[in-house]
Amino acid sequence: MVVPTAPVLIGLDWGTSSLRAYLIGDTGAELDVRARPWGIMRVPSGGFAAAFRDVAADWRARWPDIPAIAAGMIGSRHGWREVPYVECPADASALAAGLVTVEDEGRPLYLVPGVVVRVPLPNVARGEETQVVGALDSQPGLADHGLLVLPGTHSKWVTVRAHRIVHFSTYMTGELFAVLRDHSILGRPAAEDGTEEDGAAASADAFRRGVACARESGAEGVSGRLFTTRSLVVVGDLAARHSLEYLSGLLIGEEVRSALAGLHGAPPPSLVLVGDAALCARYRDALTSFGVDEVRVCEHAASRGLWRIAAAAGLIDVAAPPRIAHA
Amino acid sequence: MVVPTAPVLIGLDWGTSSLRAYLIGDTGAELDVRARPWGIMRVPSGGFAAAFRDVAADWRARWPDIPAIAAGMIGSRHGWREVPYVECPADASALAAGLVTVEDEGRPLYLVPGVVVRVPLPNVARGEETQVVGALDSQPGLADHGLLVLPGTHSKWVTVRAHRIVHFSTYMTGELFAVLRDHSILGRPAAEDGTEEDGAAASADAFRRGVACARESGAEGVSGRLFTTRSLVVVGDLAARHSLEYLSGLLIGEEVRSALAGLHGAPPPSLVLVGDAALCARYRDALTSFGVDEVRVCEHAASRGLWRIAAAAGLIDVAAPPRIAHA
Repeated sequence: MVVPTAPVLIGLDWGTSSLRAYLIGDTGAELDVRARPWGIMRVPSGGFAAAFRDVAADWRARWPDIPAIAAGMIGSRHGWREVPYVECPADASALAAGLVTVEDEGRPLYLVPGVVVRVPLPNVARGEETQVVGALDSQPGLADHGLLVLPGTHSKWVTVRAHRIVHFSTYMTGELFAVLRDHSILGRPAAEDGTEEDGAAASADAFRRGVACARESGAEGVSGRLFTTRSLVVVGDLAARHSLEYLSGLLIGEEVRSALAGLHGAPPPSLVLVGDAALCARYRDALTSFGVDEVRVCEHAASRGLWRIAAAAGLIDVAAPPRIAHA
Repeated sequence: MVVPTAPVLIGLDWGTSSLRAYLIGDTGAELDVRARPWGIMRVPSGGFAAAFRDVAADWRARWPDIPAIAAGMIGSRHGWREVPYVECPADASALAAGLVTVEDEGRPLYLVPGVVVRVPLPNVARGEETQVVGALDSQPGLADHGLLVLPGTHSKWVTVRAHRIVHFSTYMTGELFAVLRDHSILGRPAAEDGTEEDGAAASADAFRRGVACARESGAEGVSGRLFTTRSLVVVGDLAARHSLEYLSGLLIGEEVRSALAGLHGAPPPSLVLVGDAALCARYRDALTSFGVDEVRVCEHAASRGLWRIAAAAGLIDVAAPPRIAHA
């Protein structure tokens, strides 16, 4: 492997279902990336330390002096060590001040705290706070007043003002989709359907039809419309093989509908999607259906956030100034 | 067993997860009831015919001339024979006209059709149409203009005018609760909690707190609040052992919130809950929280509906006039 600039940091995004490791350069760029299916609920038998060594051993051998930092559920009570939540409003410095250390072979691994909001209802996040820090660093103008949407198993809608996370909400859209597909009657038509998928266009149509159903539900929301995932198939108005795309549209559409309803008619501030490109494309499509066209997508936010928090903690020297726009 | 009046009908309420058999008298009263865990997805190895014989053999031997009728998923494509849906608006006569017969040992078993609505979105029901017919028969005034709520795995909200089912919606509340409890992160705190339940009052409080959260969500709905089932526990504001009661309140509250939002501010018409007494009590509690106080509860609707449809089909003579109020 050619390493164009000197690595300064090993960063881990260590969640419930997966572990991603980054070798990070002095401008915050990803010099190398590794993914393992070793979420905190399914680490190999050697435990967290063995998993860490396995994924980063050669990096640590070659650059023994660079620090290592990890964000995500690894800092939960089911992780390596529980790191107390930082109260919102919170910025990179507050997260840096809350770092907790675990030791492996005499060398520290710094764990990033999650964040908590308490009013009007409590919400907690672990991992997304780091992605938000990374996104603010790379997206000009976002840090003053922005709305960040981090789609996923538990989507987060994060409001930022003056570089601080001031509020966020959680939508269990990804988990809802998975449990309804795998364990409810709504997954059955697609599972029983033996025919081939007939193209991306038909899938996209079914997805958008679900989004439109959610949008048109207005103040009712989709709870009385989820069942149409089945009833449309029963009456012959939706092919079984497209029913999961329709369900995906219903659920993502409901997330967007509900979040926009919470803005009480105010136009959303500068909106940035953070995360996996394919999933962000789905959300961008849904947002467009709701008339929200000014949407940017930010990738590589986790590694950049780890780098920025490490810098705020004084663990590394940062060559580049903050808020460099990346591609 | 003492049978005070002559039985005239064997009625089966045969759904996805259970089978209930009724021996029904000439006034529509239940003379005997049997329950088996033999829903259509889990009948014993002998199949539907063997299950029917097992549950009703002695009745059929003792009263060989009385007819037998069944409603529910037994008439679906996964049941004994598929019975085409009857289009709404539909009344007892339309259901009677749609009966389909299967034969067992040379004697017919009549299968009641389900109902379908197609606009604005399709909905299908099998079994609930029969309960509605039974409820209309026993609840004075309901048949002219009523709203019937049938809570369950798939709750139905049914609008009746002039004795006909004109529209209905489906809320997957019971199934959502089960899949979230058994397969999502929301069920984990309660499953991991080892402490004893500390009384019905605390449970009822947690349930009502969930209902209130749904009510206060307004046009947003609960999609961004489901996660509070977990986050309230994480921040120490809800005991893990009460979290499923809270979730039940959130989901039933969302069903009520959404259904009332669909009325666009109009007061609900005469509202009757149909079904299991404990579940109906939960819904009555939730409806009260939304200011809907005029709620009646109707039990024994399935047997009464089977009896009324059998009469409409001319299978039995009915001694009592329709719409006798029962306790």
